[in-house]
Amino acid sequence: MGIFQRFARIPLKSTYIWSLCRQYSTDLTAVDRALIQHRNPGAAPPRLPFSRVTQEDLAFFRTLLPGRTITDPDLLKSSNVDWLKTVEGNSEVLLRPKTTEEVSQILRYCNERNLAVCPQGGNTGLVGGSVPVFDEIILSTSLMKQVITFDNISGILTCQAGCVLENLSNYLEERDFIMPLDLGAKGSCHIGGNVSTNAGGLRLLRYGSLRGTVLGLEVVLADGRILNCLATLRKDNTGYDLKQLFIGSEGTLGVITAVSILCPRKPKAVNVAFLGCSSFQQLLETFQCCRGMLGEILSAFEFLDASCMSLLEKHLKLTNPITESPFYIVIETAGSNATHDEEKLHKFLEEVMTSSLVTDGTVATEATKIKALWSLRERVTEALTHEGYTYKYDISLPVEKIYDLVQDMRGHLGDMAKNVVGYGHVGDGNLHLNITSPSKDPALLAAIEPYVYEWTSKWKGSISAEHGLGLKKRNYIYYSKPSEAVALMGSIKAMLDPKGILNPYKTLPDNIH
Amino acid sequence: MGIFQRFARIPLKSTYIWSLCRQYSTDLTAVDRALIQHRNPGAAPPRLPFSRVTQEDLAFFRTLLPGRTITDPDLLKSSNVDWLKTVEGNSEVLLRPKTTEEVSQILRYCNERNLAVCPQGGNTGLVGGSVPVFDEIILSTSLMKQVITFDNISGILTCQAGCVLENLSNYLEERDFIMPLDLGAKGSCHIGGNVSTNAGGLRLLRYGSLRGTVLGLEVVLADGRILNCLATLRKDNTGYDLKQLFIGSEGTLGVITAVSILCPRKPKAVNVAFLGCSSFQQLLETFQCCRGMLGEILSAFEFLDASCMSLLEKHLKLTNPITESPFYIVIETAGSNATHDEEKLHKFLEEVMTSSLVTDGTVATEATKIKALWSLRERVTEALTHEGYTYKYDISLPVEKIYDLVQDMRGHLGDMAKNVVGYGHVGDGNLHLNITSPSKDPALLAAIEPYVYEWTSKWKGSISAEHGLGLKKRNYIYYSKPSEAVALMGSIKAMLDPKGILNPYKTLPDNIH
Repeated sequence: MGIFQRFARIPLKSTYIWSLCRQYSTDLTAVDRALIQHRNPGAAPPRLPFSRVTQEDLAFFRTLLPGRTITDPDLLKSSNVDWLKTVEGNSEVLLRPKTTEEVSQILRYCNERNLAVCPQGGNTGLVGGSVPVFDEIILSTSLMKQVITFDNISGILTCQAGCVLENLSNYLEERDFIMPLDLGAKGSCHIGGNVSTNAGGLRLLRYGSLRGTVLGLEVVLADGRILNCLATLRKDNTGYDLKQLFIGSEGTLGVITAVSILCPRKPKAVNVAFLGCSSFQQLLETFQCCRGMLGEILSAFEFLDASCMSLLEKHLKLTNPITESPFYIVIETAGSNATHDEEKLHKFLEEVMTSSLVTDGTVATEATKIKALWSLRERVTEALTHEGYTYKYDISLPVEKIYDLVQDMRGHLGDMAKNVVGYGHVGDGNLHLNITSPSKDPALLAAIEPYVYEWTSKWKGSISAEHGLGLKKRNYIYYSKPSEAVALMGSIKAMLDPKGILNPYKTLPDNIH
Repeated sequence: MGIFQRFARIPLKSTYIWSLCRQYSTDLTAVDRALIQHRNPGAAPPRLPFSRVTQEDLAFFRTLLPGRTITDPDLLKSSNVDWLKTVEGNSEVLLRPKTTEEVSQILRYCNERNLAVCPQGGNTGLVGGSVPVFDEIILSTSLMKQVITFDNISGILTCQAGCVLENLSNYLEERDFIMPLDLGAKGSCHIGGNVSTNAGGLRLLRYGSLRGTVLGLEVVLADGRILNCLATLRKDNTGYDLKQLFIGSEGTLGVITAVSILCPRKPKAVNVAFLGCSSFQQLLETFQCCRGMLGEILSAFEFLDASCMSLLEKHLKLTNPITESPFYIVIETAGSNATHDEEKLHKFLEEVMTSSLVTDGTVATEATKIKALWSLRERVTEALTHEGYTYKYDISLPVEKIYDLVQDMRGHLGDMAKNVVGYGHVGDGNLHLNITSPSKDPALLAAIEPYVYEWTSKWKGSISAEHGLGLKKRNYIYYSKPSEAVALMGSIKAMLDPKGILNPYKTLPDNIH
């Protein structure tokens, strides 16, 4: 308890803490744990000593962005609260720049004035990363929605950060291409936000992560400098790949203003199968069989459990198209030859049905039916919001372990939780564990955390596979990253944003800012 | 000329230079050009004031690495010179650690003693990045060749940095998997070197870059700290992705000691087609047709020109299997169903033959013949070494531009060059432009550079698509990266390696160290 007490006495924003941690390097795990546990780690920390917005500041912004400097509280309301309605800030200014130059001028001014800034895309994040914690100025990309170029030979798209993912998808489909990522929030999320959070989603299994498909970024740094790394080349090994710093750093190192991304050809044939399994073991065996038999045409392998299906039926009035089962799988194939793809899919289905790995199933090749089947997977998040309060966990684990966590959590929580459900991306070893309760419940939260993180850490998993850390998970980083790594992240933050004005209280733990 | 003269008077290793550059920020292009042009930018800079290895140092290394501290000049010779025999250092010590802990102790010692270190893998680099420039201690990964784990469900391999790529390929093939990268130097190159240089190679078109497939790294920092980011998860968004800093930074930010990498299943069917085209325009049309018709089974689309073929025939006695043509294409398909793949390939071949895009061709499905066809592409580099001295350029351009550069260069150089040949990765827009001469020829070099870089820069290409910058290309970085980006790279270097002991004189230009 000595270390614990030592930390309790020292203000959190102190480099002294970190040097203390380093001194106790033989006992870093205990230190990290103390840092994590000594108060509610998901809660907001104390406000840091940033300046407050003055009338002079507003006058500056109104001159720079006439009609696009929003201060009406009603208009600000939806930007102050996250999509899940679990985190709420009280920013009094929302800025809506249209150009990179405007973003640059805003940040240069804010940095000089020591005003904190919360960059915001479609505000669909799930970890409280996209809303202000206190009175940070909201810098919205909503008016930065121009496609800059699209090259239909290379498939390389360059666009402003505020383009809505679904709009980009529609734009590309007309040109016989698709975006390399797809996710449930596509109707609202911005590509800049997708890149800032290194969004994974439904196509990662096939097209890989944004770290491979994003070819270039334009970023405005905290002091207003514009970093133009907006290359449109598949390969470029000239020096360090700076854009990687901004992918997945949740707006804490710079504001992404434009993106170049490599887009695959639109597949000529798409099939979706919706299958039922009687155990998770059978689901895993189906996955193995699927990878072997569908190979290069497999574009998604997703799952949801029976509890998810009940919520879809109850709250969204969706219909289960097959016999009731403990587990459901969504398999998508995407290929260049419809006949070949259907033959592969049918052989696979024959194999898994005759071997009883799968108990029932249905297949769609027509767009409307494909969409209907996909919505059973995509709308689980939405169905959960009707249940009251949802505690959300986004965990990477070795694939054979992912459902053990759900079952273990059910046993651990017993009647305390209303629902404990699991769904997610089997192909990526990524579980979305969701626990609902009629309303916020500190006792339930205390039973879940740090239990869920300890469980994940024990199996060398990640406590955030794709959602990021944001506000809610920032202090849990040590469950997935060693102290040396977190300290180095702090050095990078200090180098790029010495005053810490960019999305404060997010991503990095409270002992590092 | 004012700026040019100003730089000529100031010692290159000076932060003052950079602050000067920043003052002249309205004229940065001219400044960058002056920095590049004021002397032979590929030549070695003056030795930096590192310590020299003493008898005490040797005694320390011999105690730490008994029998693995090499000082015999004969044994050191091959490690002091690059594979192309164009760059030679005069290191007097080669260290061969077996463990990460040993690497850590070496670097901690060298950092304290201010001894410079050149990390070395298989020493197959083409830009002088893997050999010492002066007397840097060579830190070889050649004894770090253990596979640590392989998970045959997820396909994730974890191994030490010194594993030879071909050995890993063989190891995986026995387990029904393959490495996601393949390159001509596979028999010698180390996976740690591949990752340090962000090697591209022959499979990038299909499996993407190492930035997506490398899941984790263990790295020893300049001061000996071990950074363990050796995750084996497909998705992990907990904080900044530090491993990206070390991918492609050519050993200047840390020494990679272990790698986790996602490996694809071994395809059940592989076909290779070797085709002839009568113009580069027809080759490009063949590529477009190929992408549409082969789609997801296309795993490589490579080319070589008639001059390359002549060199293969002349120096390596290889036989051209088809009618003589101005251009040759190697197409590889890899898929899960031999019948489907062959059907797709035959339809495609029928299409390109009947439309006269392709003039002649041959197809291989059997391993020995596949290997023979591939060697026509893979052994061009080797054939060139028999021509005398080779000036090598590794350029990314919009794909429709790549051969224009070869033709333009032929016209520009006229009789000065013995050969001007082009080959490379059409699918990635990556040209290998090679210019040969009986021996080193400063006049020829002056005609090539900066002409080739200006040409590339005009088309917003990369002056190093996959080879990196190393010693030879470091000062040309400004042709592909803006000054703000290079300055930020310098800050990252200063943060991670404040004494600059790691692979000095490489990657970053002389005004930044």
